[in-house]
Amino acid sequence: MTEPAPVFASGVDNERMNAQLRFLLEVDKLKRVLRRNLLVDGSRRENSAEHSWHLALFARTFAEYAPPGTDIERVTEMLVLHDIVEIDAGDTFVFDRADAETQAAREREAADRIFPLLPEDQAQRAREVWEEFEARQTSEARFARAIDRLHPMLANWHNEGGTWSRFGVTRAEIMEKVKLIAEGSDALGAYATALIDDADRRGYFAS
Amino acid sequence: MTEPAPVFASGVDNERMNAQLRFLLEVDKLKRVLRRNLLVDGSRRENSAEHSWHLALFARTFAEYAPPGTDIERVTEMLVLHDIVEIDAGDTFVFDRADAETQAAREREAADRIFPLLPEDQAQRAREVWEEFEARQTSEARFARAIDRLHPMLANWHNEGGTWSRFGVTRAEIMEKVKLIAEGSDALGAYATALIDDADRRGYFAS
Repeated sequence: MTEPAPVFASGVDNERMNAQLRFLLEVDKLKRVLRRNLLVDGSRRENSAEHSWHLALFARTFAEYAPPGTDIERVTEMLVLHDIVEIDAGDTFVFDRADAETQAAREREAADRIFPLLPEDQAQRAREVWEEFEARQTSEARFARAIDRLHPMLANWHNEGGTWSRFGVTRAEIMEKVKLIAEGSDALGAYATALIDDADRRGYFAS
Repeated sequence: MTEPAPVFASGVDNERMNAQLRFLLEVDKLKRVLRRNLLVDGSRRENSAEHSWHLALFARTFAEYAPPGTDIERVTEMLVLHDIVEIDAGDTFVFDRADAETQAAREREAADRIFPLLPEDQAQRAREVWEEFEARQTSEARFARAIDRLHPMLANWHNEGGTWSRFGVTRAEIMEKVKLIAEGSDALGAYATALIDDADRRGYFAS
């Protein structure tokens, strides 16, 4: 834990601001959590912080493909927050079944530690947003999830198979993820389906 | 330029979606633009994509320090977009005066190339948001700038001087940046002043 600088700012609730700073300094660690997928140019693995930035931009750019009435600001808030639990829990590769089993518990523990660094009102809000993302019951959460799933597919396609080829992912396994995309957005679901058909023709999946 | 996959998704305006994808694939390059400052733990230089993610989180967490009526969603949109021009123009170190002279022209050229990858309506909006950030005339732009300036100060303080010590920045030079922070937010200005006083006592500046 990085403690904020021991300084006193006049006219400010320093205790509250220090709690906010403790959280903001802590989440810097997300920049060191590496995902399995590579950057689009294949030069290195992507980290979860830059991934979250890219998703925020995806959400706004693709806003028109969300179901009518979806609150895109809330989607963006979710996407900016959703991976913070990986600071403790690590990135879970979506096709690693053993890891996925313990993932929920590990991420919950991380949420219990990290969000309460914030002042109570903000901790509660962050937790709520994260829980909503995880539960996938709202159109905001489903659209956010669709974007989170589509993003590495694009990187993989541009890396001639990327993590699919490297980790022996089958077409059946990837189609489970396409289903999640279609649940969040008809248009993005249709795009993902076309992309996977093409990747299959190119031999990017394990058989 | 990375071309989107040559696929056809049914029920989708594929030409429009391809323009959106062309932009989203292009901005992946921001993950390879390195800034001068280090991560909080000092382990490596920060890239502009993960920096932008962190700023989006700063904006929301520090929202209460913005002038009343400031639209925090717009601030977030600005911060997510503001560094994209660095893909062509590179990161300009805030204390490099020679570089700063040509910066505006280089960034404008970058904006002319990158934003129009988007469909026209979205390109216009992105350009508008970026111009607003650059012009610093609205409270949203001034608050976004305050956060953009405060962020590396925190990293520097936690790195025992960081880029200040390494590049011989004086207290007078840094106080120019503190002024920009105070223009965007009284509370963040007060905090930055206290932080710089403390850094000065610790001998982090060149004399």
